[in-house]
Amino acid sequence: MITLYGMSSPNVVKIFLMLEEIGAEYGFERCDVILGEQFSDQFLALNPNAKVPVIVDDDSTDGPVTIFESGAILIYLAEKSGKFFPAEGAGRYHALQWLMFQMAGVGPTFGQAIHFRDRSSGNDYAIARFRRELDRLCGVIDTVLATRAYLASDTYSIADIALFPWMRTCTRFFADVEFGPATRRWYDSVAQRPATVRALNVVEGLSSMDRKSMKSASPEQLVRYYGRPRD
Amino acid sequence: MITLYGMSSPNVVKIFLMLEEIGAEYGFERCDVILGEQFSDQFLALNPNAKVPVIVDDDSTDGPVTIFESGAILIYLAEKSGKFFPAEGAGRYHALQWLMFQMAGVGPTFGQAIHFRDRSSGNDYAIARFRRELDRLCGVIDTVLATRAYLASDTYSIADIALFPWMRTCTRFFADVEFGPATRRWYDSVAQRPATVRALNVVEGLSSMDRKSMKSASPEQLVRYYGRPRD
Repeated sequence: MITLYGMSSPNVVKIFLMLEEIGAEYGFERCDVILGEQFSDQFLALNPNAKVPVIVDDDSTDGPVTIFESGAILIYLAEKSGKFFPAEGAGRYHALQWLMFQMAGVGPTFGQAIHFRDRSSGNDYAIARFRRELDRLCGVIDTVLATRAYLASDTYSIADIALFPWMRTCTRFFADVEFGPATRRWYDSVAQRPATVRALNVVEGLSSMDRKSMKSASPEQLVRYYGRPRD
Repeated sequence: MITLYGMSSPNVVKIFLMLEEIGAEYGFERCDVILGEQFSDQFLALNPNAKVPVIVDDDSTDGPVTIFESGAILIYLAEKSGKFFPAEGAGRYHALQWLMFQMAGVGPTFGQAIHFRDRSSGNDYAIARFRRELDRLCGVIDTVLATRAYLASDTYSIADIALFPWMRTCTRFFADVEFGPATRRWYDSVAQRPATVRALNVVEGLSSMDRKSMKSASPEQLVRYYGRPRD
């Protein structure tokens, strides 16, 4: 049995998508990062970096295993299930490089682009900097998807599973970002997968809990949640 | 024979460290990202995301293979050599999670912290935001290194190889960041490895070439290199 710790944020959505794709038996523990539950001793023992998602798999071959960072969890689940990640050959590393592209590029950039536009005031330079990089990344993605069905190859992989929740976030936060035709085709194809539909159904329920936490959070909790500098 | 494309930047240094550690036979092709060579058709065919490092291995089992993203290259070289990354078990995923921590957290944060402080003006909010996250990450690293010899376990791994060049960059750019005692012990231990000494010796030569490019770059090339928003 796998337990997933998280909330409705894109990096957690990746894990719901993967768990549904591989048909894993899993439970969910909400960690309210808006209210600061990730800083509890109990959670820091799971992830000293105080971030979701984390999984605990008590059904692994060598005892319970705890893993954090969505990219590492995706690889773990792929290697455990033998799905969505070739075991060898060039295709394995092509999936890995596009997974890293999401982890190191798309995630941090989209996150900062949203933060500076919506959660800070002033900061025109930073808003333009991250939006420009977001547009560039969307261009790279569309160029690549024009040459093949999925991000790393013609087969659905953990690279697509990592990318989809951030592209979904992009559609929600940036009404003026227009995906290119190849990206739209890819996006619709991933969105229609039965596992995606099931995962997003669960996530919708979590989103409304997160919105409630946001409303109940103190100013100090919001400063911490948004990573705003303190005066 | 492996060819590494890059310059002296931290993500490229990771690959020099790894190639020296595993005793690989390799050649180097400089890609001058300051002057914009990463946007040539030839380079975009290697990496449509226009970033270094990239490797081409024409000695792989299934023909020449091209891989970009430093984290993916490290995993490729680790799996090819059977070194610095356990083939299975919990230790494998602990190395992976800390590699991802570097790729998605340390790298993007340190990079933005340097950019906003040194390459932009004004932007006090962004400077404080990224510096605060840099300090937090250094705290996480020191807490973890106080419990074991290396980042992911008591054995040197690709997670350490990924982290070291960014901690080295941190010491150079942030004189006022004081590493904790565990981090200093770890840093000195990695710095003294013969492979690290050999790799940094090569990198020093590249650094002086990069400094020359910086001096010869046009204002437009520098705007593009630094990712500054255009007016």
